[in-house]
Amino acid sequence: MTDHHARWIRVVAGIQPPEDRWIDGAHRRLLHLTKPRGSLGRLEDLAAQLCGIQQTLRPHVSNRLIIVCASDHGVAAEGVSAFPSSVTAQMVANFATGGAAINALAQAAGARVRVIDVGVHGPLVADGPGAEIVRARVRDGSGNIAREPAMSEPELWEAVAVGLDQADRAAAEGVDLLGIGEMGIGNSTPASALTAALTGLETARVTGRGTGIDDAALAHKRAVLERVLTRHHPRADRPLEALGLVGGLEIAALCGLVAGGAASRLPIVIDGFIATSAALVAVAACPEIRHYLFAGHRSTEPGHVVQLEHLGLQPLLDLEMRLGEGTGAALAMSVLGAACAAFNGMATFESAGVSGAPC
Amino acid sequence: MTDHHARWIRVVAGIQPPEDRWIDGAHRRLLHLTKPRGSLGRLEDLAAQLCGIQQTLRPHVSNRLIIVCASDHGVAAEGVSAFPSSVTAQMVANFATGGAAINALAQAAGARVRVIDVGVHGPLVADGPGAEIVRARVRDGSGNIAREPAMSEPELWEAVAVGLDQADRAAAEGVDLLGIGEMGIGNSTPASALTAALTGLETARVTGRGTGIDDAALAHKRAVLERVLTRHHPRADRPLEALGLVGGLEIAALCGLVAGGAASRLPIVIDGFIATSAALVAVAACPEIRHYLFAGHRSTEPGHVVQLEHLGLQPLLDLEMRLGEGTGAALAMSVLGAACAAFNGMATFESAGVSGAPC
Repeated sequence: MTDHHARWIRVVAGIQPPEDRWIDGAHRRLLHLTKPRGSLGRLEDLAAQLCGIQQTLRPHVSNRLIIVCASDHGVAAEGVSAFPSSVTAQMVANFATGGAAINALAQAAGARVRVIDVGVHGPLVADGPGAEIVRARVRDGSGNIAREPAMSEPELWEAVAVGLDQADRAAAEGVDLLGIGEMGIGNSTPASALTAALTGLETARVTGRGTGIDDAALAHKRAVLERVLTRHHPRADRPLEALGLVGGLEIAALCGLVAGGAASRLPIVIDGFIATSAALVAVAACPEIRHYLFAGHRSTEPGHVVQLEHLGLQPLLDLEMRLGEGTGAALAMSVLGAACAAFNGMATFESAGVSGAPC
Repeated sequence: MTDHHARWIRVVAGIQPPEDRWIDGAHRRLLHLTKPRGSLGRLEDLAAQLCGIQQTLRPHVSNRLIIVCASDHGVAAEGVSAFPSSVTAQMVANFATGGAAINALAQAAGARVRVIDVGVHGPLVADGPGAEIVRARVRDGSGNIAREPAMSEPELWEAVAVGLDQADRAAAEGVDLLGIGEMGIGNSTPASALTAALTGLETARVTGRGTGIDDAALAHKRAVLERVLTRHHPRADRPLEALGLVGGLEIAALCGLVAGGAASRLPIVIDGFIATSAALVAVAACPEIRHYLFAGHRSTEPGHVVQLEHLGLQPLLDLEMRLGEGTGAALAMSVLGAACAAFNGMATFESAGVSGAPC
């Protein structure tokens, strides 16, 4: 067992569920606020969940960070994406400059962006005004999962440890709302493979058009996915092994980030299909992690609904997005901020001198 | 014809649809931004709609105002609400102090709150740190629509003119995103009456629990609504007359606000069931107004879905809220802000040196 593997086991073993007494206390407070009972709908449940996670009756989500894990994928050589692999590095440069969708949406949500290069092809990108770029390459892109494992076991644990490191760093910085996203041309294929493996559903239900392939390419992508699954036999009862066989480096880092975030009691907003595939793996390894997760949105990628149902998560937004990068997570941060603002800022019936309902 | 009535006719006659050339130009720009085509989903359509409304390719929604129109309702005496009428004035005071949900959610969305007292019972409330309170009482609450018209024809036009005034004032202040909300104990009954009249649907489909009445009170509310409709025969082809017969003073002011906002090319975010009933009346009088409206959210009040379908509007959020006050509109402002941020802030494939899709 590598040190990284031992660390993962230690972190996961220490994850506790949010405490009911904080959640119950939050619901009691909500009854006194100047509004009809339950009328803030899901905002009430979100505030209560944040109270449980943060062990407080003053939930706060003001120090917001989006972590985007980026890597390349050998399987892109099979023609599964509408874009060439070179776009991964180009987009990391775009994140640094501040020209990507995640830069605009994070800024609108008051969040910083940090990009973790876990295995992008090509020269390293320097920090820029749009994002800090963390150099944590485990290897030069993952293996082509149609022909070989995505990574070796030591590489898997090293990539997971990158995510654990970043969770620790975020917690040490006082981050109180973590959004996760990804960039990696070809990564909807490993995400589909992991989703098929962990949910047991057939490939057709978990495969979509990714960045926008046509019907012929979609049929080809499904055939590639069948080859991937037949070759590696990823198993639902061995989620980390499955991650190493058919996943990707950024997905492994995101898996570590999710687990490390839950261990540090950070509320985590997951994004779309790829990021949620990392959450699937983490929750399969440690079900308590689920309580720390908020599904930022529902992507139009068909496998995303399947993942959310499997995790029992209801998305906060449904705006027909399918971009990745953490964009859905960034948008949803405003909803969580609003939930905290109402919970903390509203007067009670007593303090405001408002008559309560007769019941 | 009163001067106010003549003004309404003049304003409505001047409302123009957004221009296709700006919307088309927006969609052309979206093709060049560094993201897969269409991958920002509804954010792309929202940005394009804002471009059409504002006649620009730099849409902006940074000067945000929520206008809450408040009034009392004679029909509250029929026992149609879970709360007593006195709560309307108490909540206006709560808005002024800053303790209501709309204060918290507007602050989270970077919006100011202005409350228009169009006919609240009791002493006038002074401005406070939470909201400016505009004194524009047309009369001391509306008539009990189970027994008499909500207001006279001159009162109707006066209340509509209050909304037109407020739209003009907002436009003069440089407001570029207007949210509308309401406060008025008992106002889901007139909203149901207007919805039944303007959609032609039976009362059971358009009546809900409002602030939270039980089964017996709901059955009673439906019986009251039947009496209202039988007594007044509000007609779909005379929407303003229907508003005067079975509506309410704050609904009439909101109708004027929506029309005046469209005339000034302001994007308008409507809130839940009551605010949307005002939009129904305005759009029935002038269909072009629809293009200026954004449905902030889908309320759990069952008649709201019916209204949105009738208007052809797709809600931005669905968080099971049913609070009113403009809370759903405030939340949705962040989504529109994000749409503008992405549209204006993203790099193009050319400027960022990112390879486009091969297609």
